[in-house]
Amino acid sequence: MAKASTVYDVAAHSGVSIATVSRVLRRPDDVRASTRERVLASVRELGYVPSAAARGLAASRTGVLGLYFPSLDAMEELDDAEFLPGPGAALVDLVVDMPDSGAVRPPNLYFDEVLRGSEFEAWRQGFALMVGVGRGSNPTDMVNDIAGRVDGMAILAQSVSDEVLEHVSRRIPVVLIAGPRRGDDFDHVSVSNTEGMKALTTHLIDGCGVTDFAYVAGPPDSPDDAERHAGFVAALRARGLDPRAVPVHRGEFSRLRGRAVADTLLAGRRMPRAVVCANDQMALGVLDVLGAHGVDVPGDVIVTGFDGIEAGRQAAPRLTTVRQPMVDLGRAAMRAILSRLENPEQPPISLRLPVKVLLRESSEGRR
Amino acid sequence: MAKASTVYDVAAHSGVSIATVSRVLRRPDDVRASTRERVLASVRELGYVPSAAARGLAASRTGVLGLYFPSLDAMEELDDAEFLPGPGAALVDLVVDMPDSGAVRPPNLYFDEVLRGSEFEAWRQGFALMVGVGRGSNPTDMVNDIAGRVDGMAILAQSVSDEVLEHVSRRIPVVLIAGPRRGDDFDHVSVSNTEGMKALTTHLIDGCGVTDFAYVAGPPDSPDDAERHAGFVAALRARGLDPRAVPVHRGEFSRLRGRAVADTLLAGRRMPRAVVCANDQMALGVLDVLGAHGVDVPGDVIVTGFDGIEAGRQAAPRLTTVRQPMVDLGRAAMRAILSRLENPEQPPISLRLPVKVLLRESSEGRR
Repeated sequence: MAKASTVYDVAAHSGVSIATVSRVLRRPDDVRASTRERVLASVRELGYVPSAAARGLAASRTGVLGLYFPSLDAMEELDDAEFLPGPGAALVDLVVDMPDSGAVRPPNLYFDEVLRGSEFEAWRQGFALMVGVGRGSNPTDMVNDIAGRVDGMAILAQSVSDEVLEHVSRRIPVVLIAGPRRGDDFDHVSVSNTEGMKALTTHLIDGCGVTDFAYVAGPPDSPDDAERHAGFVAALRARGLDPRAVPVHRGEFSRLRGRAVADTLLAGRRMPRAVVCANDQMALGVLDVLGAHGVDVPGDVIVTGFDGIEAGRQAAPRLTTVRQPMVDLGRAAMRAILSRLENPEQPPISLRLPVKVLLRESSEGRR
Repeated sequence: MAKASTVYDVAAHSGVSIATVSRVLRRPDDVRASTRERVLASVRELGYVPSAAARGLAASRTGVLGLYFPSLDAMEELDDAEFLPGPGAALVDLVVDMPDSGAVRPPNLYFDEVLRGSEFEAWRQGFALMVGVGRGSNPTDMVNDIAGRVDGMAILAQSVSDEVLEHVSRRIPVVLIAGPRRGDDFDHVSVSNTEGMKALTTHLIDGCGVTDFAYVAGPPDSPDDAERHAGFVAALRARGLDPRAVPVHRGEFSRLRGRAVADTLLAGRRMPRAVVCANDQMALGVLDVLGAHGVDVPGDVIVTGFDGIEAGRQAAPRLTTVRQPMVDLGRAAMRAILSRLENPEQPPISLRLPVKVLLRESSEGRR
């Protein structure tokens, strides 16, 4: 038997929101005739049978999906512009723009990419997207505010307490983004952090002959950080190297903190052969400082990142990294919400997206 | 006298949403003690005096800003991936990533950038952002759905009817994005389309000796398209060239349609010296086809765009264009909403952001 049509199919088919389908079914007089006819035509064509339960369900739907992140990593990249052109400000500037003339606008970072994917997928499925990004230490209010206005939401793992998660997920589907699968019933989408970092580290040992590492970690509460470090440790162990001999610095996933770590390394007695960073922004900070001090990368020191942000591709030297599919992660999160809405009783979703180790100049080349 | 503090200042200072400040002021027992104390500390520190009116105002606020676009221009760039790794799918891939190894992920397009700027500014000001993107021909439902859930919203100019705009703007502040300032009372943010296209075209005439053009326009209902064409026409007139002699093709702002236009041009009796396109995506489509047919750009034909998307910077040859500040446009739209919320009686805002003509290989170089 063909799968029964859902209210989502009707909305997509007729090009209106879920809320509108609901209005047509419950209060048809509130809807414009042309819209009503289009929706009813879709209902007929798809053979949609609104059960009483489905009708109630559709009525309570908002047609909005939610996305919550604890902070915005573009913070350090964007300034506090005023947007008020002064009197006599030139409205047009003519510039010969050479390939390396700098002044590139801030490239996308992790959250930008996840947001883009979420927005695209919400749009494809006929939903609006409500995006909340935390400020300060207490996310509860914003998460609750969003949860009260959407049909389901995706939340960066470990960014809100279990208590809040339980509370929200009693009302709407919640999908956790990133990090390890938890021993609970939440739907979950993430990437192969452990496998990716293990493959990169193994390549550094086998392909580049590195035995002497420093590791730059993210914040302890990051869902991805522990998995990446586990992959690093596993690679060392598999080759008989002692992970406890490797100094671990905390770079908090930020470029500025990455620079501070590099300053610390340079002040030490000797540099490691390779500095493995748990994300690209920290690695770029390390490159900034090593470059400024004339350290040859990769000749003297190999530097690697994780994420695959555009800025790493444009860095000099170009940054070796593990690329995670950030846009697809956002898309997969939205899909998981919709899948849960359509099939509330299905077993927990756990989607693990593949990654790609990208070998570039910061680990290869002149040696 | 210093400017009186607003509920927004209190929210920003205490790191909570407007809705939470409102709850603290009206139903303090519904708010956690720690949050309540933080908000009240901010109220004291900022000397915020919640008038009865302000209290009512704050109570009716959602803490959400809205953004509506009629369609998603990433459509043609993103595929319909399934996100379900098949059995045995490799979770990690090891790749030597050369600078030109292609497979770059889809770069940001116009809406992505405006969205990023909007999201950043909403976040900075302590708001969530609700994003709706139209599908199909009737935007009324989605615009109304969003309008009912936000404190104010930005809408791409000319994407909804005047009737809908009037309806929505009676309830909440509406800011129009892009296009010419309209003879009405809406707040409006846009870029110097006319001036930018005029400066670029003038350079092609004076600097490159072009007298023989083809023009590739966007969709007739685009708010920016008419302004850009007006700038093109003004430049020709100012140099005594007849704009009516220039063939105008409609490329609908899409890369695929840009390719079709180039096919048409190649099928014609002779190529113009310069193909001026009203956006980058169409120009990239023209470059695709000319490149495939061995036409030398810029030796045989000069090609130019407008927008300054990343893909144009990475094209071969690199695309001469007029860069508009898309991220800042989103930020400015959000700021305009907030400015209107704080000062409902101020005169209409009309912000025109500057642009930059970027001369690159597709117009300069080998000649």
